[in-house]
Amino acid sequence: MTFDPYAVMAGDPWSAGNPDGYIDLGTAENRLVFDLLEPKLTAPRRVTAEDTWYQDRAGSLSLRVELARFLTGLQKSEVDPADLVVLAGAGPALEILAFALCDPGDGIVVPAPYFAGVDFAFSARAGAEIVPAWPELSLELTADSVERAIVEADRPVRAVALVSPNNPLGQTYDETTLRAVGEVTARHGLHLIADEIYAGSVYSGDFVSTTRLVSSVLPADRLHVVWGFAKDFGLSGFRVGVLQTRNPEIRAIAERLGRLANPSSDTQAVLRDLLADTEWTEAFLAESRIRLATAYRRTTEALDAAGIPYLPATAGLFLYLDLRGFLPEPTFEAERTLATRIFTEARLHLAPGAAFHTPLPGYYRLCFATDPAAVSTAIARLSARL
Amino acid sequence: MTFDPYAVMAGDPWSAGNPDGYIDLGTAENRLVFDLLEPKLTAPRRVTAEDTWYQDRAGSLSLRVELARFLTGLQKSEVDPADLVVLAGAGPALEILAFALCDPGDGIVVPAPYFAGVDFAFSARAGAEIVPAWPELSLELTADSVERAIVEADRPVRAVALVSPNNPLGQTYDETTLRAVGEVTARHGLHLIADEIYAGSVYSGDFVSTTRLVSSVLPADRLHVVWGFAKDFGLSGFRVGVLQTRNPEIRAIAERLGRLANPSSDTQAVLRDLLADTEWTEAFLAESRIRLATAYRRTTEALDAAGIPYLPATAGLFLYLDLRGFLPEPTFEAERTLATRIFTEARLHLAPGAAFHTPLPGYYRLCFATDPAAVSTAIARLSARL
Repeated sequence: MTFDPYAVMAGDPWSAGNPDGYIDLGTAENRLVFDLLEPKLTAPRRVTAEDTWYQDRAGSLSLRVELARFLTGLQKSEVDPADLVVLAGAGPALEILAFALCDPGDGIVVPAPYFAGVDFAFSARAGAEIVPAWPELSLELTADSVERAIVEADRPVRAVALVSPNNPLGQTYDETTLRAVGEVTARHGLHLIADEIYAGSVYSGDFVSTTRLVSSVLPADRLHVVWGFAKDFGLSGFRVGVLQTRNPEIRAIAERLGRLANPSSDTQAVLRDLLADTEWTEAFLAESRIRLATAYRRTTEALDAAGIPYLPATAGLFLYLDLRGFLPEPTFEAERTLATRIFTEARLHLAPGAAFHTPLPGYYRLCFATDPAAVSTAIARLSARL
Repeated sequence: MTFDPYAVMAGDPWSAGNPDGYIDLGTAENRLVFDLLEPKLTAPRRVTAEDTWYQDRAGSLSLRVELARFLTGLQKSEVDPADLVVLAGAGPALEILAFALCDPGDGIVVPAPYFAGVDFAFSARAGAEIVPAWPELSLELTADSVERAIVEADRPVRAVALVSPNNPLGQTYDETTLRAVGEVTARHGLHLIADEIYAGSVYSGDFVSTTRLVSSVLPADRLHVVWGFAKDFGLSGFRVGVLQTRNPEIRAIAERLGRLANPSSDTQAVLRDLLADTEWTEAFLAESRIRLATAYRRTTEALDAAGIPYLPATAGLFLYLDLRGFLPEPTFEAERTLATRIFTEARLHLAPGAAFHTPLPGYYRLCFATDPAAVSTAIARLSARL
């Protein structure tokens, strides 16, 4: 068995009553919003007989209608319920896209650094291979790096996949960058997969959806957007994601393979009713963004005071610590050693940059969307050991 | 586009107020129990913050504890929560077994007739190939037919898979038959997959679980049982199934691949609370069996009165009509033509035997676990056209 930090942490987790316990800042969960959701989730449910039976293959129509309206607001362009296939999370949506677009061994270009869940979704069963687009000098996305990855790949490339806003960087992409990536994708006749699961968690500045690229840059049937309730609604356990595509063939494949990754009709019903309350939903997202901004500010103030460097973030549930200056040598071995030391000595779990295919060693993702006392304790412990 | 009876039916479905509408007796759903479930499902829910976040990879422990107790009752032998992996339905559990046990192209022997969903789960993405074990003379399962299929297969066989009770026959297997199949499986060094999703829907006689074969016939790590809430609880839309195995490697694979087929934590919570009310659960299952028995009796009385033959059933939500005498010739072409005529003229959807890999043409599965008026109307219409 390999070392499992989650099993260790589960035996002695931090809490107000157990101040020396392990603190997990490695898991990207929005734990700041349950009090807002609680009245909706614990109230009597409107569940009909139809809600308990097999649903439409694309997901219940009433949920898709609400989702289309919601996503229209998020993306600032019209979404049609007929373009949506509801699935058991964003992961299954990504996996189905890999099955639909790739034969085993085909490549999907993904700008690094990127969330490791993408590897799992594309590769574990569908057998697609990720071709990382490595940035130059900084960690910033450039269309050139994407084009280089496409051209130099040792296998046929079928798609470019962007996680936007980026995980682990916690940064959005501006329209110029997105257009440039879209143009490269179109020029090479590829599909663009956009994982926009943090679209509603942009707490500073604007979110630009890849759907803006359609028509002017990308043909409508070449863009496939993924979203889910896990991050923006803090409902990671509910396993409801959505694949949005105007490509009828991809949609048909998603409906067919989706039979092996259908979300709960019970949960579809409660989320339908939640989104149908548009006033509540808008207030919820606004409050969630305020809480994320506050958590980010508190976290960065504590990091600044402790002299721990990080990359500024504007979106998502995390920021990227830049601990390169604390490594005895610039290697991933040293990065791993420091992660282990942080875990054993500071009793703090942070995901190291290698887990996100970061080209330079020394970055660690810190998830701050949780109990402020846990975050401040974690930073104090970290500061004492660096 | 191929002809989709569901799309046609959705446009003009039968109801008390639309007596000429299409009647769907092709879908295996238990629509007789919603009134029993309704108070539980529409009541205020006990949903905690933890219930909304990522769950244990094997499914929430509290649900697995309740499931183990429940399955112990169903199987009449002790089930350990540690042997369970909760997944988004029985289909994903079967699919994960195919990924775990087979390379693409490897074979799984399945006694015919069998539910076509098994083909999809084993083959669509995992690439396993089903090797049907064809019965001789009658449609009854024999260990000899299973052994012949294993020996004569044109590919390496990794497992035998039984749907027990059988779908579409609606019949249970007795212990002698199960032992004989288990012995053949063990003798050839194969795994046994048992889909026992109708275990709680045996309305006449006893259910014998394959777990009885462990130790005496099969090594414990060679049996993998699948169950779910879809049929016995009438909750097909909830997508909660469970893989039960004492093989640690298979369990580890299921936990890993299960990340792409996790059930909703929200629904896990309500099902946990439902099973925890053991008195309610026992009363529910007892009442469900009484209603299934009543529906079966009413259906067969109407069929007898109309002179329409069928195979006697004791389990599940359906019976197998034997319309061989109504075919102009004993071919699957004639079977399909009759199905089309029944659909267009009687406006009745029945799944023909070919969909279940039945060796002889002329059988049609009739699902009777729905509104009695729909069933009696359907039989009257059918009788008038045969």
